This record gives sequence, C-alpha cells and structure tokens, in this order.
Amino acid sequence: VLAAKLKVSGFMKRAWKIGADDPRKAVHCIKVGLALTLVSVFYYIRPLYDGVGGTAMWAIMTVVVIFEFTVGGSLYKGLNRAIATLSAGALAVGIHWLASKSGETAEHMILGSAVFLLSSAATFSRFIPTIKVQFDYGITIFILTFNLVALSGYRVDELLELAEQRLTTVAIGISICLLVCILGCPVWAGEELHLLITCNMEKLADSLVVCVDKYLQEGGIDGDKEASHQNLQGYKCVLNSKASEDSLANLARWEPAHGRFRFRYPWRQYLKVGAAMRYCAYCIETLNSCMNSESRAPEYIKKHIRDGCVKLSLECSEVLKELASSIKSMKKSSRINYLVGEKNNAVEELLDAFKSLQQADSAPLLGSLPLVTVASLLIEISVRTDGVVDA
Amino acid sequence: VLAAKLKVSGFMKRAWKIGADDPRKAVHCIKVGLALTLVSVFYYIRPLYDGVGGTAMWAIMTVVVIFEFTVGGSLYKGLNRAIATLSAGALAVGIHWLASKSGETAEHMILGSAVFLLSSAATFSRFIPTIKVQFDYGITIFILTFNLVALSGYRVDELLELAEQRLTTVAIGISICLLVCILGCPVWAGEELHLLITCNMEKLADSLVVCVDKYLQEGGIDGDKEASHQNLQGYKCVLNSKASEDSLANLARWEPAHGRFRFRYPWRQYLKVGAAMRYCAYCIETLNSCMNSESRAPEYIKKHIRDGCVKLSLECSEVLKELASSIKSMKKSSRINYLVGEKNNAVEELLDAFKSLQQADSAPLLGSLPLVTVASLLIEISVRTDGVVDA
Repeated sequence: VLAAKLKVSGFMKRAWKIGADDPRKAVHCIKVGLALTLVSVFYYIRPLYDGVGGTAMWAIMTVVVIFEFTVGGSLYKGLNRAIATLSAGALAVGIHWLASKSGETAEHMILGSAVFLLSSAATFSRFIPTIKVQFDYGITIFILTFNLVALSGYRVDELLELAEQRLTTVAIGISICLLVCILGCPVWAGEELHLLITCNMEKLADSLVVCVDKYLQEGGIDGDKEASHQNLQGYKCVLNSKASEDSLANLARWEPAHGRFRFRYPWRQYLKVGAAMRYCAYCIETLNSCMNSESRAPEYIKKHIRDGCVKLSLECSEVLKELASSIKSMKKSSRINYLVGEKNNAVEELLDAFKSLQQADSAPLLGSLPLVTVASLLIEISVRTDGVVDA
Repeated sequence: VLAAKLKVSGFMKRAWKIGADDPRKAVHCIKVGLALTLVSVFYYIRPLYDGVGGTAMWAIMTVVVIFEFTVGGSLYKGLNRAIATLSAGALAVGIHWLASKSGETAEHMILGSAVFLLSSAATFSRFIPTIKVQFDYGITIFILTFNLVALSGYRVDELLELAEQRLTTVAIGISICLLVCILGCPVWAGEELHLLITCNMEKLADSLVVCVDKYLQEGGIDGDKEASHQNLQGYKCVLNSKASEDSLANLARWEPAHGRFRFRYPWRQYLKVGAAMRYCAYCIETLNSCMNSESRAPEYIKKHIRDGCVKLSLECSEVLKELASSIKSMKKSSRINYLVGEKNNAVEELLDAFKSLQQADSAPLLGSLPLVTVASLLIEISVRTDGVVDA
C-alpha cells in the first residue's frame, strides 16, 4: 500500500510540476471545462433541448474535438470543420436528390458507389503533402459528414431540415469554443514560435561558449558544473525542435493579426532561421564529439590557440545573442554589423595563430578550427535571414 | 482556361505519381471505401436500421475516425476508443445515478461540476508526456463520451439501454475496420520502421563515400553526376527522420505478432540505432560544409592522404551496409567483426599518413580526419546496438 501511495504521490508531484512550469497549461484545462459547461448550460436553458440529445450532442462534440492548446490550432480545426461540414452536406444532399429520382435498386447502387468512390478519393487526397499539411482534419470531417448524410436514409426535405439544425449547432459549438479560446488568456501559436526561436538561439549561443571552454579545459565558467552541463546540452534542443517548429508555423498561418504580428506575417522566415540554427547545432555536435574523442592534442598547441578560440566563440555567441534580442524586439539591430565585423576579425586572428604554428600532429585540435569557422559562416547565414524577418 | 487546365493536369500527374510510387497508398484508399461500404450494407440489411440513423451513425463515425494507414495506428485508435467509451460511459452512468437521487437543483449542480472537473482533469492529463504518447486519442474520446452521457438528460434505465446499443455499434465498427485493415494487404508499422532504418543506413553509407570522394575531387563514381548528387543528399533523410521513427515505434508497440516480429519486440532498439545514425549524419553534414568552405587545402597534401581517406570511407560504408543487411535478415553477421577490424586498420593507416606529413597550414583538410574518425567511432556504437536488436 505504501509503495502504491509513493507512486501516486510521485505522479502527482510530476503533474504539479508540469502545471507550475507552464501555468498556461492549467489555464487551458480550466478553459476546456468552462467551454463545455457553457455549451451544456446553453442547452439546458434553451427550449431547443428536446430530450433526445441528438442536436446538443453535435455542439458538445464540436467543442471537445476542436478545442486545442493554441488559438491557431482551434481556428484551424474550427474552420476546417465548418467548411468540410458545409461542402460535404451540400454534396450529399445533391447526390441523394439524384438517387431519389431513380428507382429503388438504382438508388442503393448510386448511393453505395458514391460512398465508395468519394471516400477513396478523399482518403487519397490526404497523402498529397500540401493538402495533408493544411486540410487533413477537414477531409476527415468531409468523409464523415458525407457518409452520415448519404446513408441516413431520409427524404430530401427532411434532410434539409436536419442539415439546418446540425449546421446551427456546429456553429454554436465553434463560436463558444473560439470565444473562450481567444478571450481567456489566449496562447498564440505565432507567439510560441517566436519564443521558441529566440530561446533556442540563446541556448545555442551559451552552449557554443561552454563547449569551446570545456574543450580547452579552462574549468568552465565560475566552476559552476551543473549550469555549464545544462548549457552544453542546450544545442540538443535546437537539434530536436524541427517538428514543433513546423507544426507551430503551420498553425500560426491560421491566426488573425494579434499583438505585434500582423495577418500574413512571414512565418516561413522563422523556419529558415530555425534551419540555419540547426545547421549551427550540427557543427557544435561534431565539435563536442571531437572533444570527447580519446586522441587529445598536446598541451603546448592548446595553449597557443586557446585565446583565439575562446575569443572567437565569445564573439560568435555575442552575435547570436544580439540576433536573438533583435528578433525579440523585432527591430533591426544597429550593433549587429559591428559585432559581425568583430567576429570576422577573431577568425582572422585565429587563422594567423595557426599559420605561426607551422607543425601539426594534433589533428583533433586543429579539427576544431574549421568547425568554429563553419559555425561563424552559418551565423552569417542567419544574419541574412534575420534581415528578412524584420522587413 | 488553358492555364487552369495545365494546373489541373499537373496536379493529377503529381497525384498519380504518389499512387505509383507507393501502390499501398492507393490500396489503403480502396480499403477505406470498402470498410465504409461494408458498414452501410450491414445496416441496410439488418432490421436494426430504424430510419433515425442514430445508431448506425456511430458505426460509420467509428470507421471514418479509426481507419489509419498502418495496422498499428488503427489498433491504437480502436483500442483507445473502446476502452475510453467503456470507462467514460460507466463513470457517467454512475454520476448520473448519484445525481438523480438528489433534488432537481442539486442534480444540475452535481452534473455541471462533474463535467467541469472531469473535463479539466482529463485535458490536463494530456500534457503529461507518457500519457500523451500512448493515450492521447483515448482521452479525447473519454471526455466526449462522458459529456454526451452526462448531459443527455435521460433516466438511468434508458441510459443503460442506450449504452448497450452504442457499445454494440462501436464494437461492430471497430471489428469491421480492423478486419478490413488486417486482412487486405496490411501495412504494419513495425515493418515500416524496419524498412526505414535499413534504408536510411544504406543511404548513409552511400552518402559517406560520395561525400569523401567529392571532397578529394576524384570526379565522382563513373562521373554519374545526377546519381552522386542524390546519394550526397541521402544523409539529409537520416537527419529529418526522427519524428517518423518515433511515431512508427510508438504504433508498432500496439501491433500483435506478425511476420518475423513477435509480440513485445524490442522496438526501442530501433530508436537507439536511429539516434546513432543521426549522430553519424551530423558528422557527414559538417564534413560536407567543410567541403564547401572557401579555404581549400593545397593539392600535394590532398594527394598524400587521398588513398587513406577513400579507403577509410569505403570501409566505413562497407560496415554500414553489412549492418543494414544483417538487420534486414535479422541475423548476426559473421563478417561484421572482420569488417570492423579492417576499418580500424584503415583508421591507423590514415593516422600514420598524417604523422608522416609533419606540416600543416591546411586546416580544413585536416579537419576532415577527426570527422572520419568520429564517424567510425559512431559506427562502432551502432555495431553494439545491432547486437542487441538481434538478441
């Protein structure tokens, strides 16, 4: 019993930590509960509530299925659902009308083959990448609505009445859902993406410095081992963030103008910046694995280029941090050109140090140079993309 | 009109290409159509079909929502849906019974607060990673079913009858869906994962050879530019395949024993192998960017180490290919130890060549050595994981 109690308390603690780390998640849960209660209250009060639950059901279902963590997600699903329901309903009523004009057997044949053909075609269209990204959910709803209407076996005039009822309930569900979602502490996918990118850029800057520091055995910044290890792992977040960047950018496109972001804001630029950062992170990854390899460079060579390397890594991380803050404030930074110049000077100095070295049996150490150079090249790439973001 | 016609024909061609590249996708579409037609035929024939469409609706909905491309996906959704419907239904009936024992006002209060609390709690549990991965869909259905039943406003005895009806229809939907999915050309998520890993490993081997070849300006294999460029890009697939590996491994866990894979097959090992391969791919990425950097090594040094580099890269790719084929056949390869030995010899030779060089102002070239060395280290990592997979 005690073991079970410990397990439960451990689970509760973890759950509490998730809520405490990001209070918006807890708020989101309350919002879902609120939206559902609103819908049910709405149907308790209205005389529309007819005891069968057949109509209210659609509103509840809509709220449960549509409500997402970000506004973009809810909008994407809500619009998709609305459009799909409308078009599929119209099509199904049309085919039904056509079928009802023919005889009994022909009617069943027509309906059956229409269900088969349209479902297959719609399922196939989900494999086409551009459609998959933007309308995947809508197509599911399209298939669903079409089949429900086509197979329901009503007469056409009954169908029209039913369609009207269903459309109003879905519309009520969607509007309650969106109202709660947007008015109460909204979480914008665009804002999230913005934060993710700037945060990743800062992590990248930190881990670059820590990585080079550790390689040259300077003992880390202030000997604070725990923090430096955490910084070192920062670039791993950058490596693994592609999927979340993609989905956020996709949802952000559905959002209206909000805060500092206008409608049709160039979200794709964020993806480009993200790709450039991942490119930098690959370099740090390789640098890191060189660091852990067994063959180490002799001390005297290390000493020779230590200053150059450290200076270059500091300059690089300065540039990255300046970029991050300029993206954060969405202004073109005046210092950025100066910093890039400084960084290029540091590269030159390091190259000079190498030339004066004139001997090499310390491949792993030398290996770090091209990496740092490449990293600086990549930073220049991101400088360029940054200009576009702020445009 | 002509422009629109061209656009449509271009779209059709692309769609055709998707189907032709992977006929299983086309088969999948036909299967979806078939399952839906079966369900509708089932309800046309059975007297259960009562004209309201209220019951048949659930079966259609179940099929549309559950039918996924892979067997694992369908099983995951089907089981989640079945369990969630059962548990939520039972809970809601219980609360309903409790509420009906109290007065009119108290009843509404109890139901309203139960809806609010349970929906919030269930939504929160979706943020907990372990639950999110395995039961995300189930929780959505749980919230949905619970609210539908709790708010439906029936008496308890009516509810039980309704619950029974709904359960049978959902069960019919799930079983038709799974039968069609498993019996007609099944696509197993486990099989897909297996193929993805071996295919990526082969791509990695090819692009390693091509990359080193290109760096040393040997002109590519047989001067076949197009093919070599494609091989070079192979490692990018490896870089970006993390998300699909994760989701496939997750779905594969739901699948029963099939083909050469038994139940509870260690799918996590595939993820480890995938991570090791991505690690290799990072190195190739860096090597590739060194290759494209402006500062190039003088010709005489290149000549000096060319043979060593090419040999090492060939050995590495041999090891990778042997690994791929041994994973494919799921047998421990007898040649693998010999090949790894050969590769290690090649590393030694290359290091000797460097030592005899004794001078270096050609950092970028030397930079390629640690990278190749690291690549070989990583291959050893994957050798180790491979042993576990076949165990």
